[in-house]
Amino acid sequence: MSGTLHGVGLGPGDPELMSVRADRLVRGTRHIAFFRKAGRDGRARAIVDGMLREDAIECAMEYPVTTEIPLSNPRYNEVLSSFYADCTAHLRDLVDAGEDVVVLCEGDPFFYGSFMHLFTRLKDFIPVQVVPAITGMSAAWTASGAPITWGDDILSTVMGTLDEATLTRAMTDADALVVMKIGRNLPKVRRALEASGKAARAVLVEFASMDGQTVRALSEVAEDNLPYFSIIVVHGQGRRP
Amino acid sequence: MSGTLHGVGLGPGDPELMSVRADRLVRGTRHIAFFRKAGRDGRARAIVDGMLREDAIECAMEYPVTTEIPLSNPRYNEVLSSFYADCTAHLRDLVDAGEDVVVLCEGDPFFYGSFMHLFTRLKDFIPVQVVPAITGMSAAWTASGAPITWGDDILSTVMGTLDEATLTRAMTDADALVVMKIGRNLPKVRRALEASGKAARAVLVEFASMDGQTVRALSEVAEDNLPYFSIIVVHGQGRRP
Repeated sequence: MSGTLHGVGLGPGDPELMSVRADRLVRGTRHIAFFRKAGRDGRARAIVDGMLREDAIECAMEYPVTTEIPLSNPRYNEVLSSFYADCTAHLRDLVDAGEDVVVLCEGDPFFYGSFMHLFTRLKDFIPVQVVPAITGMSAAWTASGAPITWGDDILSTVMGTLDEATLTRAMTDADALVVMKIGRNLPKVRRALEASGKAARAVLVEFASMDGQTVRALSEVAEDNLPYFSIIVVHGQGRRP
Repeated sequence: MSGTLHGVGLGPGDPELMSVRADRLVRGTRHIAFFRKAGRDGRARAIVDGMLREDAIECAMEYPVTTEIPLSNPRYNEVLSSFYADCTAHLRDLVDAGEDVVVLCEGDPFFYGSFMHLFTRLKDFIPVQVVPAITGMSAAWTASGAPITWGDDILSTVMGTLDEATLTRAMTDADALVVMKIGRNLPKVRRALEASGKAARAVLVEFASMDGQTVRALSEVAEDNLPYFSIIVVHGQGRRP
């Protein structure tokens, strides 16, 4: 009798924005696994603080590297692959022994999430269920206080890690924009926004739906480096009766 | 003492995918308003069936037109503007009288939603709060059984109502795709997917997260006209250790 592995999206950070299903699974499941950076509490784990069963068994999966090795270095893939192999072996043992396991996922598990690395390695061997969630970008455009898309607007979601030419082309062709993974890429993102004619409409949202949420016009942002939880939105201007 | 208007995103259709906050507001608020097509039950209203207070006062806002007048006809904007003016006058009266009102919204209110037409007309006059939600596209890629985006993938969301050249360009430039508002536009959408080299990877999801959910490779879909709740997803192929 196998258990089930649940990849549970927790949403953007506010526990009240978890789905009813996620809330039920988090509160009711004994085995709770989550990724975190070594030495940190873990962002996903922080969202469910105070919600776990008294007899919960937690499994912190600590990344061996985050930004210490550049993505382009083959070592990066090697180290991470071996890490994911260890994680999946442990999760598979639990599920094979009949246990249900919840993997806590920030945002939506299938949208730029780390869970997918477990999912692709496990889906053919054990039952895996995925609970979608409110994305960080939804929380960001909600915080911005205006609809992101209208009518037939094209919305593009781009990562600040892309090269400037690719960013500029994608930004030019879209009506509405979401930019994530900004961090130290802000100067490049800003140049691409300017080249695409969208800089004046860009809004920076930090810590959307969380304590410390801020919303500023990008033109008023002086710093060149942003925290992880930063999202730029550019609202569409489509048809509106 | 004014009340508050809550634009409450209900998510993709499965009531368990509502957020905890949405669930609380829907169950606890007396005034419940929602859009629907004349003569229909209303899709948003159907999601909350059995959840409303016994003393709930429902306000069905019935669209005077949907597809009877083409979007390009100035009459369309005129008729809809007058309809939205009537709706907002009623909602504003309630809130001014101290009542809280929940407007039920399918999906996420700020993502191609009808709520934005009320929001823009009311936000400067009464307190308005928006509850983000799981989008229909999140439910669609979850149903498809594979992550939509990896690493630095560019995700573009496009409407099938766009012209073929615009569709083709947007599809070509994106790594991952979501196509909504398909309906009778399917032949055009299919041609654009083919021209952009993405047709072979396209997956059609109908009724994501709802009764009757289906997932098919687009290449196996024979019909030329799809129901409203149809979303095509093309998964990104980005970096994956």
